[in-house]
Amino acid sequence: MAASPIDLKKCAVHTRTNKPWSLRQCCEAYAKRGIGGVSVWDDAYAGIGVAEARRIIDGTGLGVPALVRGGFFTSLDERVRTESLDHNRKLLDDAAVIGADMLVLVVGATPGLSLADARAQVIDGISRLLPHAEQTGVKLAIEPLHPMYADNKSCINRITEARSVADALDHPLLGLALDVYHIWWDPDLDDEITSVGADGRIFGFHVCDWKLDTNNLLTDRGLMGDGVIDVRGIRSKVESAGFHGWNEVEVFSERYWAMDQDAYLDLIVERLGSCT
Amino acid sequence: MAASPIDLKKCAVHTRTNKPWSLRQCCEAYAKRGIGGVSVWDDAYAGIGVAEARRIIDGTGLGVPALVRGGFFTSLDERVRTESLDHNRKLLDDAAVIGADMLVLVVGATPGLSLADARAQVIDGISRLLPHAEQTGVKLAIEPLHPMYADNKSCINRITEARSVADALDHPLLGLALDVYHIWWDPDLDDEITSVGADGRIFGFHVCDWKLDTNNLLTDRGLMGDGVIDVRGIRSKVESAGFHGWNEVEVFSERYWAMDQDAYLDLIVERLGSCT
Repeated sequence: MAASPIDLKKCAVHTRTNKPWSLRQCCEAYAKRGIGGVSVWDDAYAGIGVAEARRIIDGTGLGVPALVRGGFFTSLDERVRTESLDHNRKLLDDAAVIGADMLVLVVGATPGLSLADARAQVIDGISRLLPHAEQTGVKLAIEPLHPMYADNKSCINRITEARSVADALDHPLLGLALDVYHIWWDPDLDDEITSVGADGRIFGFHVCDWKLDTNNLLTDRGLMGDGVIDVRGIRSKVESAGFHGWNEVEVFSERYWAMDQDAYLDLIVERLGSCT
Repeated sequence: MAASPIDLKKCAVHTRTNKPWSLRQCCEAYAKRGIGGVSVWDDAYAGIGVAEARRIIDGTGLGVPALVRGGFFTSLDERVRTESLDHNRKLLDDAAVIGADMLVLVVGATPGLSLADARAQVIDGISRLLPHAEQTGVKLAIEPLHPMYADNKSCINRITEARSVADALDHPLLGLALDVYHIWWDPDLDDEITSVGADGRIFGFHVCDWKLDTNNLLTDRGLMGDGVIDVRGIRSKVESAGFHGWNEVEVFSERYWAMDQDAYLDLIVERLGSCT
């Protein structure tokens, strides 16, 4: 099944993608090009406050798929885990003010803690966070992260593990955010997308690309078309699995951050059409 | 079950680990410290020829777990695939001359070729190579590579996929080389090691570490104890699964290559004892 034609109104850009810009610059530039949404990283409103962020976003008429990012539930120190939960509750409050559909969860990993024990802490943490998600009406989206982040960012590295957490807690506000960067290599990708889609648990879909000459584990992502990922093919699978939400552009790239951001955004729009 | 005490006589070092050294320097230094083996990268004898390499190794009494590395079976160009098979046959001949137990296979991946199609080419390639493995008596060891190498190095990124290739071809000369760097994050690690061990298909075991601050996808590996991998725990699992072969030290590191290699080798020996 072919992917549907891309609709800019169903596309959003993460503020971190245009890191040199303020939230206002991001929102005005996205709206000007007909992009429908902005996903907000918490540093984008750290200096202005969440209420002002809401006013800026409302002034441009953009939708807000996600607040990014909560999670980091794991620690060897019980007190740190408690503090992390408090921070996640605050992020849910922020998400509600901003009007974000979901809070994206990067679940955490801790050197010295086995990945199995870390995953148990993640289930515990999310279960404690769900009541606050209910109060705020904001969804929680577990984002499986590429295995190269299993050291200190995420003990959940494939869709299947994220799905098993969602199955274990079985809550309508708990689902997954799928980012092509993290999942493209998975031999079980097709079946996993089908399964998680059938459960109605694909909450978010992030697009970017994996460059052949990747020179940094964090900040050398490619824009769709720069690398080896069949982004359109994966979008088609996600849509076939029943997802019809936002296509969120999330690219961390020193190279692109060094560009003129207006020219870069033009390129993003072009690549949404030609390679997404 | 605890890992057995490390026995230097059952340890080997890959020539690439001490990249600044010649094959002769490697072998003499390893033997001097009581290390039992050397795994030979083909560039280590490119300038001297394989017969001379054999004489050097024999002169030091070292065993040779592996010649590294064959594979790269995938391509969009049929002719390239044929050439690759010829090169692998030559490597098997070299391995026989050197007295290597196995040829390690990094199976390949090709941008523009789906990972599923690439895996089919890998099965085809190995099946064509097996008759020459029989003639030379050299084993073939598929090394699953970390998913961050799925772009252009390996379409086999977990033990389970390597195991399914071995199952499909079911040949006594075909097995796996397990490198902690590539497999440590796998949620199915314990079960997979048990399964592949029960089949008698663990041919090789490579040790190193994953550093928290990894700054390069290829040449920033850690020495055992530098990072987050429970190397001793994985060695224990591998031994419990029936593997009692070599512990091969394979570390690619610009930082360590810049060190005095004798001091570095002393550190390797210490870490084999304390962290492996």
